Amino acid sequence: MHSKLEQLLSKFIYIKTLQEDAVNKSSTLYGYIPLNGEKEVSKDNRAILHINNQILSAIDIQEYFNIRNTKDNDCYHWGEGSLKTKDDASPYKFNLIYPASDKHLSKYDYKNRNFQVIETPELYRNVVKPYIDYNIQEGSIQWVHNIIQGKTEQESIRFDEPDFLVLPDMKWTDETDLKNMYLLLLFKNYQFTSIRELCTKEHLTMLKNVKKFVENEILTRYGNTSIDKVKLYFHYQPSYYQLHLHIVHADNELNYKSMLLGKDCHFLDTVINNMEMMIDYYQKCNMVYYLTDTSELYKRLKEAM
Amino acid sequence: MHSKLEQLLSKFIYIKTLQEDAVNKSSTLYGYIPLNGEKEVSKDNRAILHINNQILSAIDIQEYFNIRNTKDNDCYHWGEGSLKTKDDASPYKFNLIYPASDKHLSKYDYKNRNFQVIETPELYRNVVKPYIDYNIQEGSIQWVHNIIQGKTEQESIRFDEPDFLVLPDMKWTDETDLKNMYLLLLFKNYQFTSIRELCTKEHLTMLKNVKKFVENEILTRYGNTSIDKVKLYFHYQPSYYQLHLHIVHADNELNYKSMLLGKDCHFLDTVINNMEMMIDYYQKCNMVYYLTDTSELYKRLKEAM
Repeated sequence: MHSKLEQLLSKFIYIKTLQEDAVNKSSTLYGYIPLNGEKEVSKDNRAILHINNQILSAIDIQEYFNIRNTKDNDCYHWGEGSLKTKDDASPYKFNLIYPASDKHLSKYDYKNRNFQVIETPELYRNVVKPYIDYNIQEGSIQWVHNIIQGKTEQESIRFDEPDFLVLPDMKWTDETDLKNMYLLLLFKNYQFTSIRELCTKEHLTMLKNVKKFVENEILTRYGNTSIDKVKLYFHYQPSYYQLHLHIVHADNELNYKSMLLGKDCHFLDTVINNMEMMIDYYQKCNMVYYLTDTSELYKRLKEAM
Repeated sequence: MHSKLEQLLSKFIYIKTLQEDAVNKSSTLYGYIPLNGEKEVSKDNRAILHINNQILSAIDIQEYFNIRNTKDNDCYHWGEGSLKTKDDASPYKFNLIYPASDKHLSKYDYKNRNFQVIETPELYRNVVKPYIDYNIQEGSIQWVHNIIQGKTEQESIRFDEPDFLVLPDMKWTDETDLKNMYLLLLFKNYQFTSIRELCTKEHLTMLKNVKKFVENEILTRYGNTSIDKVKLYFHYQPSYYQLHLHIVHADNELNYKSMLLGKDCHFLDTVINNMEMMIDYYQKCNMVYYLTDTSELYKRLKEAM
């Protein structure tokens, strides 16, 4: 599955456009790749193709060529190449998710179907935590474990510390473009599935050390950026259940979608402050967020509520 | 100042475009209106013109005509009309801020210049609260007081309760379009300048009653919308210092800019939950937000830090 990206792309059959983004100039396409000549889309052959630097009607794509496979990790594939449309041939970067899971797809299915969840500590214990455990057992964060275990994406790691790794987010393709800085700080301890699991003085100390490290080491390396020029935050619910801190330039406008209210960001400084006031704040508080009713987690919560 | 909107517009001299929004299909233009033949822009003649339903290069505007003045409140003027460009003549809605203050302008000056503020309770007491008091004394929320005192916009009021008023946000122009619901719930007590001032059991009870009212009265009137289909939140820092709750449909995509992380939203349910855990949470916590370095508040904070 890790090879033949050119072959995968050449067999990509377009179904519909999931997202067209005029700000990012990018398109996200849904389709399938019938490697074994299947006639229909199935759980095993679904694919999500994200193309940077292009807004195009996917139907116009006639050919991909000169494809260079830059990175693979589990179901994620990155590359560069050219593509030919009716009118034009131009270079692009892309990533392909193949095979794409229900969770991958529901991420794009956010239109018209957002519902509020007030997650009490009881709902967390009885519904969300079991869902997370199931999710991890099913291998949904195998790709994260691969990075932490040194198996993949090692060339992307910018800092490797005892507690965490730092690497550029997939959306930040040009690391000299500081204004669009987007780094991820990935905690190594599998126990930290989300901020819900942060509850001891040791955890608080770890967070404070992370903040110092961001200021003194990471931002120093990236153009001596000042700490008040970045946004440091966690998502809840996160996209994947291994704790990671977003490090985003305060003037970054490209990646605004991940900063939308629906995604429910929690600033590192707020998390630290809440834990200083009440060390088990994140075990006692209600978490408020929005889910699409097509997501597996929402279905489970709805049953329990 | 309340008259002759047509005259105001006919004398509007364009300086630059503050914002073009492809999603909202709207433009925000900066210029000045030299009513007394002034040759230059000044604090007294600056204007911000927001035009709905049009994306256009402002330079192309050749004529405004058939202007109907639908509403005035202090420096805010609303209207409808037609406008002629080189290629076209078409209907539009607009609002004009004239004269426009520094605070009005700095709201649009958010590019490239966002800085984090960690507002401790001390900084609130020593810098932010005095700034708010000054701001209110200068008349920046006279237009809000006008509404609360029954002087203006009375035709927009949908609910008038002892503690609060409910009216549609200026961005929600079609109240039958439920998916884009955007209401404001405006508290009447001048003591509530922001969520920082919520600190007693009576305040908590008031917030819980507001939530019930939203569910049982407001949403019932708007198509029986379910409570889990809306986002109820406060901003901090808010745009103006009279406490107001945003009531926005969860699937609303038009108004996403006000939901960006930089604006620092605080869900009503989170506020209630925090006060349940610690009644004076909002007097004890640090508030994390981002300001442009051109804003008066940022300058004062910077001096104090």
